[in-house]
Amino acid sequence: MKSYRKELWFELPTRRGFINITRQVEMGLKESGVTEGLVLVNAMHITASVFINDDEAGLHQDYEKWLESLAPHEPVSQYLHNRTGEDNADAHMKRQIMGREVVVAITKGKLDFGPWEQIFYGEFDGRRKKRVLVKIIGE
Amino acid sequence: MKSYRKELWFELPTRRGFINITRQVEMGLKESGVTEGLVLVNAMHITASVFINDDEAGLHQDYEKWLESLAPHEPVSQYLHNRTGEDNADAHMKRQIMGREVVVAITKGKLDFGPWEQIFYGEFDGRRKKRVLVKIIGE
Amino acid sequence: MKSYRKELWFELPTRRGFINITRQVEMGLKESGVTEGLVLVNAMHITASVFINDDEAGLHQDYEKWLESLAPHEPVSQYLHNRTGEDNADAHMKRQIMGREVVVAITKGKLDFGPWEQIFYGEFDGRRKKRVLVKIIGE
Repeated sequence: MKSYRKELWFELPTRRGFINITRQVEMGLKESGVTEGLVLVNAMHITASVFINDDEAGLHQDYEKWLESLAPHEPVSQYLHNRTGEDNADAHMKRQIMGREVVVAITKGKLDFGPWEQIFYGEFDGRRKKRVLVKIIGE
Repeated sequence: MKSYRKELWFELPTRRGFINITRQVEMGLKESGVTEGLVLVNAMHITASVFINDDEAGLHQDYEKWLESLAPHEPVSQYLHNRTGEDNADAHMKRQIMGREVVVAITKGKLDFGPWEQIFYGEFDGRRKKRVLVKIIGE
Repeated sequence: MKSYRKELWFELPTRRGFINITRQVEMGLKESGVTEGLVLVNAMHITASVFINDDEAGLHQDYEKWLESLAPHEPVSQYLHNRTGEDNADAHMKRQIMGREVVVAITKGKLDFGPWEQIFYGEFDGRRKKRVLVKIIGE
């Protein structure tokens, strides 16, 4: 069994945003030499997500508006968590809806994807350095 | 290490619906010959889900109503994504709540499930052919 | 390839609650002897979750309030599922938002975590015995 590990680093200039990381995961897969197995891609921070969906700018704006309606950032005083000095309680909720991780099949050395699947980093509390883990096992 | 891959195809006559795919995953597991490992079951489309829950018709109607309240289909004009010519932005949101994939343990050649766990395909934009991937690794 | 399986048992005295199970997963990992691989941790019941987030009491109260706003327990008659004699339809919904499972990378014999990641059991229909599965594969 082979295993491979890589960290992807991000520092978004805004509080929230989505970044397509599919190519970086594919580069890791190529480096790993694994042709059959699984790749785990997960946010290493608890106010960020990794998810698979469509690379369409309108949809990303829809997600932003929708997540804000389900877990509003303001007023920050509505969340007990923010009494710790943070203002990111909403980010912990948005991350639960969008998810922490994805697991993707590796077949014949490639991400085994349907036609529109793309991997995204979802940032909900940016403006600081944060990481994503890519872990591959297989042979 | 053994690996196994299978696609399950669906074409629901309705926009939304849930299909129990547990038996099809079990058949794949049997074909794979894997007795210890992991099975990944994921929607290959970004307006569909694979999830584990109860096979109870009332609950499925509750899910339908609940998901529609959290991410309504109508009016389709409320979503920027639908300006691309689609009318399925809500389906991209429902899928995030229900999830893209499940990973299930394989122990002694069986899906290592609790008493009520069943695997479902969740369709949120049907009336066309769509796929689920079953990928098994182990030995 | 090595594989390892362990069940964690819980019986919460309340309907809902969160329990940090990180140490129990780490003990399982140590017992497994696996140094490179993946660990799957999943609720074996469909009204409970396993998720990764922050071990902060205020946040957990925020989650409780937020989940109750998205999928209220009362009135129980609003859910068709509760006509089966259950009163836990809301728990099946809360579990979908928080998720069934997490997959965590194992690197050099440790859970490959960011600085604040902790694994939680999320109970939404307690006051009875329920289980979590820890399954490890790797070498």
